[in-house]
Amino acid sequence: MPATIEGIFTPHVVPLDDQGNINEPELRRYVDWLIDKGVHGLYPNGSTGEFIRFSPEERRRIVRIVCDQAAGRVPVLAGAAEATARETIEACETYAEYGARAVAIVSPYYYRLCPESVYAYFREIALASPIDVTLYNIPMFASPIDVATIRRLAEFERIVGIKDSSGDVPFMMRMIQAVRPIRPDFVFLTGWELVLVPMLLLGCQGGTNAISGVVPELTRKLFDLVRAGQIAEAMTLQYRLLELFDVMLYSADFPEGFRAGVELRGFSTGRSRQPMSEGQRIDRVGLQRVLQCILADFGFVSAPAEGCPVRTGSIERDRVAQITASVVHELRQRGVL
Amino acid sequence: MPATIEGIFTPHVVPLDDQGNINEPELRRYVDWLIDKGVHGLYPNGSTGEFIRFSPEERRRIVRIVCDQAAGRVPVLAGAAEATARETIEACETYAEYGARAVAIVSPYYYRLCPESVYAYFREIALASPIDVTLYNIPMFASPIDVATIRRLAEFERIVGIKDSSGDVPFMMRMIQAVRPIRPDFVFLTGWELVLVPMLLLGCQGGTNAISGVVPELTRKLFDLVRAGQIAEAMTLQYRLLELFDVMLYSADFPEGFRAGVELRGFSTGRSRQPMSEGQRIDRVGLQRVLQCILADFGFVSAPAEGCPVRTGSIERDRVAQITASVVHELRQRGVL
Amino acid sequence: MPATIEGIFTPHVVPLDDQGNINEPELRRYVDWLIDKGVHGLYPNGSTGEFIRFSPEERRRIVRIVCDQAAGRVPVLAGAAEATARETIEACETYAEYGARAVAIVSPYYYRLCPESVYAYFREIALASPIDVTLYNIPMFASPIDVATIRRLAEFERIVGIKDSSGDVPFMMRMIQAVRPIRPDFVFLTGWELVLVPMLLLGCQGGTNAISGVVPELTRKLFDLVRAGQIAEAMTLQYRLLELFDVMLYSADFPEGFRAGVELRGFSTGRSRQPMSEGQRIDRVGLQRVLQCILADFGFVSAPAEGCPVRTGSIERDRVAQITASVVHELRQRGVL
Amino acid sequence: MPATIEGIFTPHVVPLDDQGNINEPELRRYVDWLIDKGVHGLYPNGSTGEFIRFSPEERRRIVRIVCDQAAGRVPVLAGAAEATARETIEACETYAEYGARAVAIVSPYYYRLCPESVYAYFREIALASPIDVTLYNIPMFASPIDVATIRRLAEFERIVGIKDSSGDVPFMMRMIQAVRPIRPDFVFLTGWELVLVPMLLLGCQGGTNAISGVVPELTRKLFDLVRAGQIAEAMTLQYRLLELFDVMLYSADFPEGFRAGVELRGFSTGRSRQPMSEGQRIDRVGLQRVLQCILADFGFVSAPAEGCPVRTGSIERDRVAQITASVVHELRQRGVL
Repeated sequence: MPATIEGIFTPHVVPLDDQGNINEPELRRYVDWLIDKGVHGLYPNGSTGEFIRFSPEERRRIVRIVCDQAAGRVPVLAGAAEATARETIEACETYAEYGARAVAIVSPYYYRLCPESVYAYFREIALASPIDVTLYNIPMFASPIDVATIRRLAEFERIVGIKDSSGDVPFMMRMIQAVRPIRPDFVFLTGWELVLVPMLLLGCQGGTNAISGVVPELTRKLFDLVRAGQIAEAMTLQYRLLELFDVMLYSADFPEGFRAGVELRGFSTGRSRQPMSEGQRIDRVGLQRVLQCILADFGFVSAPAEGCPVRTGSIERDRVAQITASVVHELRQRGVL
Repeated sequence: MPATIEGIFTPHVVPLDDQGNINEPELRRYVDWLIDKGVHGLYPNGSTGEFIRFSPEERRRIVRIVCDQAAGRVPVLAGAAEATARETIEACETYAEYGARAVAIVSPYYYRLCPESVYAYFREIALASPIDVTLYNIPMFASPIDVATIRRLAEFERIVGIKDSSGDVPFMMRMIQAVRPIRPDFVFLTGWELVLVPMLLLGCQGGTNAISGVVPELTRKLFDLVRAGQIAEAMTLQYRLLELFDVMLYSADFPEGFRAGVELRGFSTGRSRQPMSEGQRIDRVGLQRVLQCILADFGFVSAPAEGCPVRTGSIERDRVAQITASVVHELRQRGVL
Repeated sequence: MPATIEGIFTPHVVPLDDQGNINEPELRRYVDWLIDKGVHGLYPNGSTGEFIRFSPEERRRIVRIVCDQAAGRVPVLAGAAEATARETIEACETYAEYGARAVAIVSPYYYRLCPESVYAYFREIALASPIDVTLYNIPMFASPIDVATIRRLAEFERIVGIKDSSGDVPFMMRMIQAVRPIRPDFVFLTGWELVLVPMLLLGCQGGTNAISGVVPELTRKLFDLVRAGQIAEAMTLQYRLLELFDVMLYSADFPEGFRAGVELRGFSTGRSRQPMSEGQRIDRVGLQRVLQCILADFGFVSAPAEGCPVRTGSIERDRVAQITASVVHELRQRGVL
Repeated sequence: MPATIEGIFTPHVVPLDDQGNINEPELRRYVDWLIDKGVHGLYPNGSTGEFIRFSPEERRRIVRIVCDQAAGRVPVLAGAAEATARETIEACETYAEYGARAVAIVSPYYYRLCPESVYAYFREIALASPIDVTLYNIPMFASPIDVATIRRLAEFERIVGIKDSSGDVPFMMRMIQAVRPIRPDFVFLTGWELVLVPMLLLGCQGGTNAISGVVPELTRKLFDLVRAGQIAEAMTLQYRLLELFDVMLYSADFPEGFRAGVELRGFSTGRSRQPMSEGQRIDRVGLQRVLQCILADFGFVSAPAEGCPVRTGSIERDRVAQITASVVHELRQRGVL
């Protein structure tokens, strides 16, 4: 029987070289490092892994490398979404051969499909996949999967869990309450690290968190603290992740901030497949300096030689809050909200 | 039989004095000016008129002054929304006595009510009001009124029209298509001046546009051009309103930009009831200078002595576009969209 | 020195009579009952209390009754928002005389104001109020208060806390992280009962929760469990509140579902000030039957004589999830998101 | 010199066979029919053409077939978006060889990128593409392109126009006002057929409208009427497109309603690549019956033998309006808006 899916799975970035091609040696080195630092599993071809920016062949290669390098030390949850259900099923077959523990399949993207279409899509895959399937709900990027649909899909044995990146705490509770009675073994993973402690307390088995690719020691510790019932300590650590996460998420287009963080831990991530303007290149240098200061506070790296500014800890957040207010204003002016 | 509601009705600001009290002489002078400049009607207690920031007694006083000063020269559409249906009906009775042509009643605000509640609210008013009622749909600020609800409400004789501030062109077409067959006389007014020409072309009888309180000559001309079939000329004028509107709408919290515009036309608008910070007071001076330059281009005022900057015509707009993009990003990150 | 603001404050409904007028005896009886059942404080004129649907005089009367009846047994947090800053300050003065512990002031509503305007509004009040002020952030109904603004406002001694009804867990953490270092005594209360346990764990001093007006015993117990470190028990109870809350919130326009719940606990809430259609009246009977079944499970009332249906526990939620998906689709079709 | 891009370009569906593979003979037959019916150009690999659901090789094949079959009779605007800028540039090269007039490139999707990233992406393509590029703004599905970014991109000679599917009339005016002074030849096409007349009146050179794949005669006639200055007739026709469009857009997930419409015009569209549930298959039969009735009113097909129901013309629209209201309510409850 395959191992339980539990703990922190890292949706890792894919190191590239100077031409933007997959840097296999660096990817293998990064996989080793993540396992050494205590992640419970690996998750290639997630949103952090920029699956959308690779060709179908490249996506296969990435999973092959990761499964090969992990070599059974930790389970691999392989992102398997392709352009259609048929091609996704072919990817499932391939990843089963590669030895992945399960696949994670994002809901159809680009078009926003209705719940019935989302159901039909996953149903077709569930009936044909030779490998366990976890649903991947990320409403910011793809068609949302709602509670009713999850409950219907939980009736397929092949579907064993859901990774939810909405960060919506009551939504997670509603899912768990709707599915657990009919599928006690169904796995709930949160993709929103800022609420990892609450999500674990309310019954999630783990998380798939981009931040674990930068500070795997901390997410592991946070998980262990919750499991040990040391809630206050876990919550303190949860607070400490806030600044790091916000800086990586809001200072650059996702997932560039996380790629910058991985670099600071000693890995070359190479040339991004998404072009950057001059201004963005300069911003990234500034971002990385702030990141270095934050990581230095944790003791993972040394502080920049030129020193660290006093961080208010909320510059990015405030900017976001202000634009949120402004745009709601604008949307209302346009008569939409 | 009362006159048809048609043309441009001005949802005017209310001049205040230095203590923030109603400046009656200035309001009377402003009413005269608007009528002289060709507006087809007056609309006190609209959103531009900050009805929400006055007491019930003050709202009555404003309508009384406007009706008295208009003295039948143009019809008055009086905003009559109060805290409850009962009090709104009392306001309707009062405004009928004052000689208003009709009242405009905004959908319930603060709470966002479902269509059935919106229907029940207006139904109660329609059955009791002694004066014609126009619905006021402004989804950016109040509970939206949808097509099905409008059609149901159009069955009440007392309800004679709708003022729609959504600016949504297809929505207006859907309303007209749904209501005209059962109520050929139903009046559709647009509250979004940027699409005034298209709205008139597709069948609206007029508009209630804040900008007409600043440049009543232009909105009147635009209306007359469309009626005369001079579409190209009307569209050219429509384009010219774009910058003026955007600057007044997006450079300050509504309706402060319009109050600044009215001042430039020679009226004292007084101390705003919404407090301003130091920074905002400075910004308002800058806004007014830009406004003066725009109005000078139209020949309504002389340019500032210190000269005018080269206007790209889109600073405000771009800021809005960028924050819109950013906040959608943020909302998605938060798992909502 | 005034007592600390801590624990569960009930934003209570206001019982009305058959004409929709304040039912003072029933309000007094309800206040007694809430105190007997263990609420830590009372919060008249909140959103649950429909402050917007009362006249300024009625709002004063409500606070006077509640302060008088509480008679010092529990502190009163009085909603004091009026049409303008000036009138709000007058209400603060009045409520200080009535013996309220503090006032809660909602951010300006109807217009969506920018952060700078929100700051200027509260600043003016903070400088003039003779009574402690808590900010009230409820972005679903009023202008949002962002982290930067809260931090700036926390510099005024008169502002002693914030009640946040966004339910956004990371937002609460960001606020606490930004304000605690400069104001260790600043009070954070959550208005979103579905995340009460997580919010208490991350440092909130309490909550202002509409559900506490229906099941005050449970919110008190939940609070006590968290304080006693019995997290698992607290979380179990948190789950049990989910269905009750969802049914009251999503089965009718807010706060009618809560009014229906209060009735089941033995209080006459009277005729709503918001008109209801025939269909809504029938729906409300159905809603109340479901509510009775849920409350019977808790042992607070007996089950309906006609029996209870099997509840899936998620009918309302699914409907909401589906419409959310559909409307996002629609908004995208309209080119907004 | 290549022909001007002007008129109605059809973003056409791709006929499939029973296995979901490209049905080349039917695609060729459909191309001939569209040209015969008067479309000004063809637009393969648009959103209507489900580009996202084909492999890179299939996308090339589609463009090759369309260019070959069009054989210079009308220009081809080929959708060229691939996973990365590099691969998109390769597609540009290929489509230049195939004889496409220009390519249309959708803004990066899945991730929502900031304006600077959108700029950098198109800049890289503009510098390398051997074929004219039109930007494709479809904010409902992909990263939005704002006015400032369009203006910056209009400085690249290779970028010759924009296709905007936002349907936002003032936004189109802002774009035109910002770009025309620096690039008088820049082409603006609207992708929102419900506002085609207004968009043409304000200066758009044409449209890329899915509805033209179902009723090419009507969109052509509408275009010709506007050009001939017969605005009232054009507007009447614009109204008649409303019901047809709404039914095709809102009765099924996009673009299935348009595929159903194309079938009624005599083409086999085959098995959709997006799986359908049983319920959806039944709904599609119902949808097609309604569509047949609408198309019969236009005289394009005969009415169904079983007769047509009385159409209120707004069932779909109302449903959308109601869910919009409901979900805004829900979003607010969740503290987001």
